[in-house]
Amino acid sequence: MAEKVSVGLIGCGVVGGGLVRALSRNGALMASRLGAQISVERIAVRDLSKNRDLPVEPAIFTTDWMSIATDPAIHLVVELVGGTDTAREMILTALRHGKSVITANKALICEYGEELFEEAEKNGVNLYYEASVAGGIPIIKALREGLIGNRVQRLYGILNGTCNYILTQMKNKGWDFDYALAEAQRLGYAEADPALDVDGHDTAHKAGILASLSYGFWVRPDQVHTEGIRGLDILDIQFAARMGYTFKLLAMVKPNLAAPVSQNGARPFSPVQVTVFPTLLPEDHVLANVNGVFNAVFVQGDVVGETLYYGPGAGADATASAVLSDLADAALDIKCDSAGRVPAFTPHEEDGEVQDIDSVVCPFYLRLQVMDRPGTMANIASILGDLNIGISSMFQPEGHEGDRVPLVLMIHDARHDAMREALKKIGQLDVVFGDPVMIRVEPFDPLPVLAD
Amino acid sequence: MAEKVSVGLIGCGVVGGGLVRALSRNGALMASRLGAQISVERIAVRDLSKNRDLPVEPAIFTTDWMSIATDPAIHLVVELVGGTDTAREMILTALRHGKSVITANKALICEYGEELFEEAEKNGVNLYYEASVAGGIPIIKALREGLIGNRVQRLYGILNGTCNYILTQMKNKGWDFDYALAEAQRLGYAEADPALDVDGHDTAHKAGILASLSYGFWVRPDQVHTEGIRGLDILDIQFAARMGYTFKLLAMVKPNLAAPVSQNGARPFSPVQVTVFPTLLPEDHVLANVNGVFNAVFVQGDVVGETLYYGPGAGADATASAVLSDLADAALDIKCDSAGRVPAFTPHEEDGEVQDIDSVVCPFYLRLQVMDRPGTMANIASILGDLNIGISSMFQPEGHEGDRVPLVLMIHDARHDAMREALKKIGQLDVVFGDPVMIRVEPFDPLPVLAD
Repeated sequence: MAEKVSVGLIGCGVVGGGLVRALSRNGALMASRLGAQISVERIAVRDLSKNRDLPVEPAIFTTDWMSIATDPAIHLVVELVGGTDTAREMILTALRHGKSVITANKALICEYGEELFEEAEKNGVNLYYEASVAGGIPIIKALREGLIGNRVQRLYGILNGTCNYILTQMKNKGWDFDYALAEAQRLGYAEADPALDVDGHDTAHKAGILASLSYGFWVRPDQVHTEGIRGLDILDIQFAARMGYTFKLLAMVKPNLAAPVSQNGARPFSPVQVTVFPTLLPEDHVLANVNGVFNAVFVQGDVVGETLYYGPGAGADATASAVLSDLADAALDIKCDSAGRVPAFTPHEEDGEVQDIDSVVCPFYLRLQVMDRPGTMANIASILGDLNIGISSMFQPEGHEGDRVPLVLMIHDARHDAMREALKKIGQLDVVFGDPVMIRVEPFDPLPVLAD
Repeated sequence: MAEKVSVGLIGCGVVGGGLVRALSRNGALMASRLGAQISVERIAVRDLSKNRDLPVEPAIFTTDWMSIATDPAIHLVVELVGGTDTAREMILTALRHGKSVITANKALICEYGEELFEEAEKNGVNLYYEASVAGGIPIIKALREGLIGNRVQRLYGILNGTCNYILTQMKNKGWDFDYALAEAQRLGYAEADPALDVDGHDTAHKAGILASLSYGFWVRPDQVHTEGIRGLDILDIQFAARMGYTFKLLAMVKPNLAAPVSQNGARPFSPVQVTVFPTLLPEDHVLANVNGVFNAVFVQGDVVGETLYYGPGAGADATASAVLSDLADAALDIKCDSAGRVPAFTPHEEDGEVQDIDSVVCPFYLRLQVMDRPGTMANIASILGDLNIGISSMFQPEGHEGDRVPLVLMIHDARHDAMREALKKIGQLDVVFGDPVMIRVEPFDPLPVLAD
């Protein structure tokens, strides 16, 4: 009954295997929902001899990806090899041969998205990448279709399951960073080289994609100010918990609220803060309660208000679910001859720009190691005061170590450049030891209400 | 640059007004995202003299909805009048005149969906109803597009903001039902006649729609076993809280896990439990923490795992956001000539059926008013034991009232018919006063893992 859509798969590791199994199990169901049957006809792998134990004919495997990307009998190509060199070539080749492409490759989309989208449009095909952000959560569809009538007022994402697992265990079990990372590696949540995850780059790629879709200008990875969670001190997690805060590695995308409002009262789009760093959230906020390897994206739109999307952010099955969603969209676009119906990317603000980190304003948590003697606080307070930085509360935990004591300061809204200047001066005081620890706080204050 | 899509609006109350305002504010943005301009050209209302203060020309208002539903210059009709009589006629008329229709009318979709979808298909147009369930949360798009590759293993919804506000205030502020309802009415969260909300019918309409989309056979409102929250006793909310449970009015959609598994190990689709009743949830579950007027839908798919969608469930703006999403889809379908791309409804299991409430199995909370004398518990326990109903724990709160004391029993998984039989017999004991209170418990136990 159903039309057949022939799919070529390039790469058949964990996600590819999950995809083939899910299609084998639910392919008939999808066909009844779609009115089109999705059939994996060819699979390119590096090593034919590997035992994959997949429910497909061995004859469909090849080591020659080019033969798939150029095969006239293949309608759609799914790229699941990762990396940004060969993968880019694979996708460009398939697009140039008139095939729409589906990818889960966030690094590639973030870095080379504009080139790939242009090539897709030029060839009258499309590029689908739901699986590139937040695994099984259909956030790209929600953002650009479900919330299409909204200006995004702010977007926060917990987008890396490895980091969220580590932070959850540090808080709940009191593990230090190294132990939590080792456990994550033992459980398969973290790679042997964890840099991409724990240093925030993976989150930055996803933040760039979500920011681009929200604000309509392409944000490249080097524009995303990125700090990871490596070496986060358990002491800060514990002090923060005592004050009612939880640590999350948070992607933040939001327009600069201090920018002038336009004449008709509309909140301007730009410049837009696009950042990734460890952040303190009030522990009763819904995002603070997203634990373990789960991801979540909080989107506040000017029409809809506050919404949240939660689910597994990684893993073979969750990612396969997102690829299946793209396969369905692509199959429908083939069936209805509507390849550009929802283009891979639509610019809508040509003058959009990323806000410089120096001008980003937020509250801060500051921990210093200071000498326990009269005048210390006066020295620190006068440096902050001179720079117009306000202290909202202070906290001197118990427990001394000789004459050195920790001092925690909560800072009112301040600019990053002012804070940097203050920390430089504070670090030069002879009553302060080592580097100050500076963590941003996101209080989720209500947005100012504007007249219509 | 952009094609124009001409929209006729029938009904311009709270949601209609919100829609017109949102389009006025964000219409240019949507046009840049869509490549098509959505323009409200005509609006049908009952009373022309009402002051609406909307940013449109007064000349576009009419009292004659028929002239809009039949106007060849109108491409899309948005029905926002509510009710199931005239609204049905309006939609049928527009569909028969070759116009796709967008509606937020859950009662109409649930009751007459099949007739309307058939009429849409017959005329080569479509019917869009994202706004009919869970307000601004794009749950229909998530369910039938984002999760299209999944078998829904279970779906839970908090779908009525009025009830959720009342339950939240009863728990957090200790208000009784009548006071919480009066406050909801005062704040505009509840209608003067609150029956549709507090008796669960509104939730049942939405549950029917979500069940239909998940399992591919149409579930009519009279098939949804529905109990509301009217008269819920603050005592039970307090007792439940002491045991770590929170009350929610929960829509539940899940296949009968006790049904035989098919030969290939696949979990069968049917019969499917589709119910609405007050339910006790473990207080640390994410759904137990959806508070106030917010809605949330928890969907567990066999590929993706656990996902959650959260946002405002009602109100002019949230509903307008969902209507805008449908307007965008409809505009793209006009632009791409792809009206049936994602049909209003696609059956995929012809033999699907709703599970009879008698065979639904779950744990229960039971509160009895009993005489405080020896032998009372033995009498009750032997009735439960004879029916193979197991007691998991007991709780006798302090505080007497003469010789009458409350007795709370937590019951292991039991069938509804067995529980009904037990309660009948227990109610006849001369040591038991008044009607027993019976509340279902949803423990969110992990699903059994099946071989691939």
